[in-house]
Amino acid sequence: MEALKKSFTEHVKSLQIEIIEQMKKIDPSLKLNKDLWNRKDKNGDDGGGGITCALSGDIFENAGVNTSIVHGLMDPSFGKQILKESNSDGEQKEYRMWASGISLILHPRNPRVPTVHANFRMIQVNDKFWFGGGADLTPYYPYEEDFRHFHEIWKKACGDDYPKMKEVCDNYFVNKHRNNEMRGIGGIFFDHLNSGDTKADFEQVVYLSNHFIESYFPIAEKRVIEKYTSEDEEFQLHRRGRYVEFNLLHDRGTTFGLKTNGRTDSILISLPARCKFSYAYKPPVGSIHEKMMENYFPKDW
Amino acid sequence: MEALKKSFTEHVKSLQIEIIEQMKKIDPSLKLNKDLWNRKDKNGDDGGGGITCALSGDIFENAGVNTSIVHGLMDPSFGKQILKESNSDGEQKEYRMWASGISLILHPRNPRVPTVHANFRMIQVNDKFWFGGGADLTPYYPYEEDFRHFHEIWKKACGDDYPKMKEVCDNYFVNKHRNNEMRGIGGIFFDHLNSGDTKADFEQVVYLSNHFIESYFPIAEKRVIEKYTSEDEEFQLHRRGRYVEFNLLHDRGTTFGLKTNGRTDSILISLPARCKFSYAYKPPVGSIHEKMMENYFPKDW
Repeated sequence: MEALKKSFTEHVKSLQIEIIEQMKKIDPSLKLNKDLWNRKDKNGDDGGGGITCALSGDIFENAGVNTSIVHGLMDPSFGKQILKESNSDGEQKEYRMWASGISLILHPRNPRVPTVHANFRMIQVNDKFWFGGGADLTPYYPYEEDFRHFHEIWKKACGDDYPKMKEVCDNYFVNKHRNNEMRGIGGIFFDHLNSGDTKADFEQVVYLSNHFIESYFPIAEKRVIEKYTSEDEEFQLHRRGRYVEFNLLHDRGTTFGLKTNGRTDSILISLPARCKFSYAYKPPVGSIHEKMMENYFPKDW
Repeated sequence: MEALKKSFTEHVKSLQIEIIEQMKKIDPSLKLNKDLWNRKDKNGDDGGGGITCALSGDIFENAGVNTSIVHGLMDPSFGKQILKESNSDGEQKEYRMWASGISLILHPRNPRVPTVHANFRMIQVNDKFWFGGGADLTPYYPYEEDFRHFHEIWKKACGDDYPKMKEVCDNYFVNKHRNNEMRGIGGIFFDHLNSGDTKADFEQVVYLSNHFIESYFPIAEKRVIEKYTSEDEEFQLHRRGRYVEFNLLHDRGTTFGLKTNGRTDSILISLPARCKFSYAYKPPVGSIHEKMMENYFPKDW
């Protein structure tokens, strides 16, 4: 199992480099702010760390492409909860975790280019292993062929698992307090992936993660040359506001990370550089942006 | 007690009008978007409603001055929790609530004018009554005389209760995930105010609420004529980002309201019209804004 863990970590690190290279191809102005960080576990021992890459340029207004490999002793009550063990399993048991993953979010400046988010992770607690991850798209303009492209790639990558992974995604990235509007147009999402064959799961998740570039960059390349209007930007900035609402109110990764003393700057790198909030905001009646709103509800692409 | 409840409601409604008039004096361009809304209680019966006043102008970029008077049956488990009753008190008991209050937040455009928030409320569950409220200031420029003015007014209004109410405020409006930075420079905050003499508590809270105008408007009037720089605005927009983080991650009123199916647009009126988020943001070294940061930790004013 140690070989798989090492291999997963090498994979996410090389994927991190590859994705940043793809971004640079589209955005030669891109500036990289790379932070290496370390953490202590709950006993103050070495707990691993990460590589945070904060990026900003003319095309990608702000972005984060982060990897982390963390490990160490866990709070026993949290360990018990995560392994779904009952309280009778003995209070004194130690819970040791290991987690390796990549997490990224790209916020383009041009509202015709969608925002995208993805993450892929391998997790171990004591002798149990599982995987999680996904990729979802947040467009601001109704180029439906782009939405179909994104979903097509994931359909191809996921095979029979696509319908379930799409449904989980549709149900997860939802602003319940905004009449169940989704953050974007979905994609795939999976958690606690554990078929019993860790090697097979590893191969599937590596395979999935290798589809990210194909799912997003052709769209970005195609749309980055589109001219946009101030109305497009107004809509984008308000939708980015909804993105902030989702991430801070509902996203389990964000709230969990902040509550467990995670590295705040690396976690909140997901927030857009600029956004707007207006009372009872609605796109203008009859506008293309009003039409776009229909896409923020589950749909077959 | 019915007379006190009626009187509190009349008070918050007239305070709402008075505060909006004060805003108009400073900002003749101010536009009011007034929404009257109703709600149903958990059984679908009339549950009261509110008056949401969304305001926007050249001086006050966005603001909300809201009142609400809500009532009805509560979820019994929540009623039990709020009255601190143990589970043995009988599952079948009914919990009926009534709450009346004013809540406001003003986001001025000029970074030399502070953002301000206040609320004052009277609450009843079955035969128990209590009050809550407070006022806190979020400045973006180190005009320390303004911070002293704000606190002086509340010190005068609160008398012997000021030290405790200030401390509760200092401990409440804190972004724990940002090294315990406060949202602003504090003020006063109190919850579950119940001395046993509801009439006396009522009089104290009405008296406190009548100090809001004096605590804030002289500052706004004085600073609104100040010229400001793009650096001032950059700092303000990032601090507004922290304001969003606090409200969505930590504010009990916001998260509780959204989780209990409150009116989303009225609750999130607290968010600033525009804000910024940057990776590992810090004000420039040696700048006046770096100096301002020192004020976001508890201090005697």
